[in-house]
Amino acid sequence: MKTEEKIQIIVQKLKDYLGNRVAVIGVSGGIDSAVVAGLCSQAIGPDKILAVMMPNHKQRAEDGLLVCKTFGIKMWHIIGIEKFIEAYKSWFSKNELSDKLVLGNIQARIRMSILYANSNINDGMVIGTGNKSEMAVGYFTKYGDGGVDVEPIGDIYKTEVFEMAKILGVPEKIINKPPSAELWDNQTDEDEIGMTYDDLDRILKYIYNPGFSSDDEFIAVQMFGADKVNRVQTLIAQSEHKRNLPPVFEIE
Amino acid sequence: MKTEEKIQIIVQKLKDYLGNRVAVIGVSGGIDSAVVAGLCSQAIGPDKILAVMMPNHKQRAEDGLLVCKTFGIKMWHIIGIEKFIEAYKSWFSKNELSDKLVLGNIQARIRMSILYANSNINDGMVIGTGNKSEMAVGYFTKYGDGGVDVEPIGDIYKTEVFEMAKILGVPEKIINKPPSAELWDNQTDEDEIGMTYDDLDRILKYIYNPGFSSDDEFIAVQMFGADKVNRVQTLIAQSEHKRNLPPVFEIE
Repeated sequence: MKTEEKIQIIVQKLKDYLGNRVAVIGVSGGIDSAVVAGLCSQAIGPDKILAVMMPNHKQRAEDGLLVCKTFGIKMWHIIGIEKFIEAYKSWFSKNELSDKLVLGNIQARIRMSILYANSNINDGMVIGTGNKSEMAVGYFTKYGDGGVDVEPIGDIYKTEVFEMAKILGVPEKIINKPPSAELWDNQTDEDEIGMTYDDLDRILKYIYNPGFSSDDEFIAVQMFGADKVNRVQTLIAQSEHKRNLPPVFEIE
Repeated sequence: MKTEEKIQIIVQKLKDYLGNRVAVIGVSGGIDSAVVAGLCSQAIGPDKILAVMMPNHKQRAEDGLLVCKTFGIKMWHIIGIEKFIEAYKSWFSKNELSDKLVLGNIQARIRMSILYANSNINDGMVIGTGNKSEMAVGYFTKYGDGGVDVEPIGDIYKTEVFEMAKILGVPEKIINKPPSAELWDNQTDEDEIGMTYDDLDRILKYIYNPGFSSDDEFIAVQMFGADKVNRVQTLIAQSEHKRNLPPVFEIE
């Protein structure tokens, strides 16, 4: 299916899903949220979108504002998260908060709860910006950026998100910067995941091929190397709990 | 099945689930978290439990400490959430935060993220305290108290949680206070839900009866009144999204 067709499908699904409600989007200035803003804008119009920029002290909101300008979104807030992080600093030790995982998750969960406060106040829905590649390898925070009402691009590989961005008219500045969760300095997604999105997506397509067999695995290993294929398989397995509901102990 | 047997099943499942990891429990001083603390204590021993009390300024942690004392839990933190709420006050208007739903959800999500910070730091699992009755009618905050790793008493009706509490030795002071999410002054669960837990559980058992038919509905209506039966059915339907993963728009 062509990317243009996929855009039309998502736009229609967003329209049906949202009805008359406000779409609340955490607009980071990155490509995923820019694409989601563009899709929502086509689906329900920019006047029904609330964009929330939530920079920490090292970030700026200018790329987020550029997204708003691009898609005609006039309802937006810039909510710095420093004060929210301060609250954690008063209870956790410096050493504990120096752990990237701990602080990264805290930031993602602060942003989730700010988005939901905006959503509650405006009778909105929190629109997720997770793509298929990230979700597959668990590159998101459970109940953080994973804590949303709907995932419109959750079935779109990251490499195709770039295609969508071009078609939707996302500014080149945003398309061209290295994808990053920006949870710490110089973090890039590809460093974290341990390979390029190109490689990740090609490996995922092998793995998700319904007929994936040991032959396919052999081919994938030949093409990408055993290390990368194993890494993707391990990441998928380890993040299983993030893509499922918390188990309920069934008694009878 | 007898309540004693159910306790044994949950204890065994907790043991299998947790392995050598720390159980992180938000201990509010209420009956649900007290029962979960007691179950975890039997499953993995009190030394592997981290209890976190998270009062706001109007609450005290004494009942939570009583739970810790009862079950021999020596690892605990008291983390007041006032400062976390302050951060919201600096960005949202007084009017917006005076809405009970908005502030209640914020508090529940703050507590979730504090529990996960503790869990990340201690290589733990966040143990949920949701019971079957609350979960059925959606009486919890999505990604708040619903944001946990596992729900050990998620298949136990509230009325049976009381039975478990007695068997486990939860102090009477805790068993006897009116159940409350304590998200605002004088809040009680039963006021919120609009009926007693006794009635709610009896109606739920009718509805969840695999053979629930229009005859059963007729009997339920005769016994409890159409208003209550309708209310439970409406609450179940409205909270469907809270018990499911956020939908991913599937494209191909």
